[in-house]
Amino acid sequence: MMETIVSSATREVIIGHGRPTVLIGERINPAGKKKLAEALVAGNLDIVRAEAVAQAQAGADIIDVNVGTFGVDEVALLPKAVQAAMGAVDLPLCIDSAKPEALDAALKVYKGKALVNSVTGEERSLQAVLPLVKRYGAAVVGLVQDDRGVPRDAEGRVTIAQRILEKAEAAGIPRQDVVIDCLATAVGADASAGMAVIEAIRRVKSELGVNITLGASNISFGLPDRELLNNAFLAMAVAAGATALIVDVARVRPIILAADLLSNRDHHARRYIQAYRQRQSAQ
Amino acid sequence: MMETIVSSATREVIIGHGRPTVLIGERINPAGKKKLAEALVAGNLDIVRAEAVAQAQAGADIIDVNVGTFGVDEVALLPKAVQAAMGAVDLPLCIDSAKPEALDAALKVYKGKALVNSVTGEERSLQAVLPLVKRYGAAVVGLVQDDRGVPRDAEGRVTIAQRILEKAEAAGIPRQDVVIDCLATAVGADASAGMAVIEAIRRVKSELGVNITLGASNISFGLPDRELLNNAFLAMAVAAGATALIVDVARVRPIILAADLLSNRDHHARRYIQAYRQRQSAQ
Repeated sequence: MMETIVSSATREVIIGHGRPTVLIGERINPAGKKKLAEALVAGNLDIVRAEAVAQAQAGADIIDVNVGTFGVDEVALLPKAVQAAMGAVDLPLCIDSAKPEALDAALKVYKGKALVNSVTGEERSLQAVLPLVKRYGAAVVGLVQDDRGVPRDAEGRVTIAQRILEKAEAAGIPRQDVVIDCLATAVGADASAGMAVIEAIRRVKSELGVNITLGASNISFGLPDRELLNNAFLAMAVAAGATALIVDVARVRPIILAADLLSNRDHHARRYIQAYRQRQSAQ
Repeated sequence: MMETIVSSATREVIIGHGRPTVLIGERINPAGKKKLAEALVAGNLDIVRAEAVAQAQAGADIIDVNVGTFGVDEVALLPKAVQAAMGAVDLPLCIDSAKPEALDAALKVYKGKALVNSVTGEERSLQAVLPLVKRYGAAVVGLVQDDRGVPRDAEGRVTIAQRILEKAEAAGIPRQDVVIDCLATAVGADASAGMAVIEAIRRVKSELGVNITLGASNISFGLPDRELLNNAFLAMAVAAGATALIVDVARVRPIILAADLLSNRDHHARRYIQAYRQRQSAQ
């Protein structure tokens, strides 16, 4: 089983099977966050700094930074946001943009080994993003979608994961620096979507051996009591072999620590009990 | 994949892969319940009736009836408790005792096809319980333990499951009438216990094809915030292939319905949304 190492200037985080699930804080992302979007359009990075600190305190291991919203020049703003986050916390960053030029500009100022979010199985994405990942010695999230979209079943997802790994290796990126995201889609729209993702995670683990991340919350789109569904799905994903999760850390850390303990990824229940005591003393 | 059918005088419940998880209400069991234990010793079955009704209202599909406690003659009391439960609800019963003579006496008065809880892989248990299951045309829960106790790993659990199935078939019991319980043990005592059970469930499903039940709450024994661990574990068990669960239905039905939906066992999210609306209107 492979390990993916990412780092800030001073800290290293290891993503690996059998280790505690690495939590990537998702909150620096203007999608659905009006206040953050408005601040970013105005070039104000105060919320970026505050969210970086808050997520670190909540137990995030890596901070995702995404500034993509209408009215923002990502090539100009993403490096500034990355610098703001680097100034606020000493955690590794996940540099998140659909624009390769913005990734390039942000990687240029980043100190350490970043996680790039993301490359897909689309030819255009592979050609634009992989050379950047190679040039900056970064790691990269590989999303299992291609020109035809996200496959409905596990088989299609695994096939695209395999293709991304082959292309990454051909571009000179070590296999262990690719973290596969099996892409949760709404179970309310397709009843088989949950098991397709869980089965894909199991197969990527057993057949490809690389690390696996997941942004899980799409699974519950359009359904009531989303937190209940998200929690159940996170537990399933950890049991199936996800080694990192892109999440709202403060909300979901308890269930993920429970899942880690149940998955033999928290020896002597040390992290689980410590987090329980922190919750108790915070009450 | 096999289906196990159990019934009361008027209702049938089908346990099967791909179907909604069947909930076996665990509350009629004096272990750890002082008030119920005292009532049973006094021969008072009012709580049995009340708990049967409450669990049926909470969404139980089958009601477990266990009266085993110090000071109770199970051979005399179990049939009375079974009759009390039959009089209170029209759900199938799970007749639960470690004493074969008590199972015999209770099966004699039961109307329908009961689920007997349980036989183990111990020679003495197989010899005493299987002929009763055959004689009364019941179904039976097979616990994966033998004279050496509960195996630590998945492999040992699957081996005992296989042995129970062979012995059942040799006794004339159809394979589909055996429901395997992979036996959760405390993850606080053995960090590998959670994954051993989940892996055993996956393998019993794929290699043996029979139905799988689980009394999940032992997993969290000795740890704080047990509900968090139990919920995560129930979601994992459903994703792995458990088709029935022995649980406190009122407490855990929401997470199990979420897990069913995510596991493609709740088409159009009908049950999930209906339960959500019931919770809303009860508030």
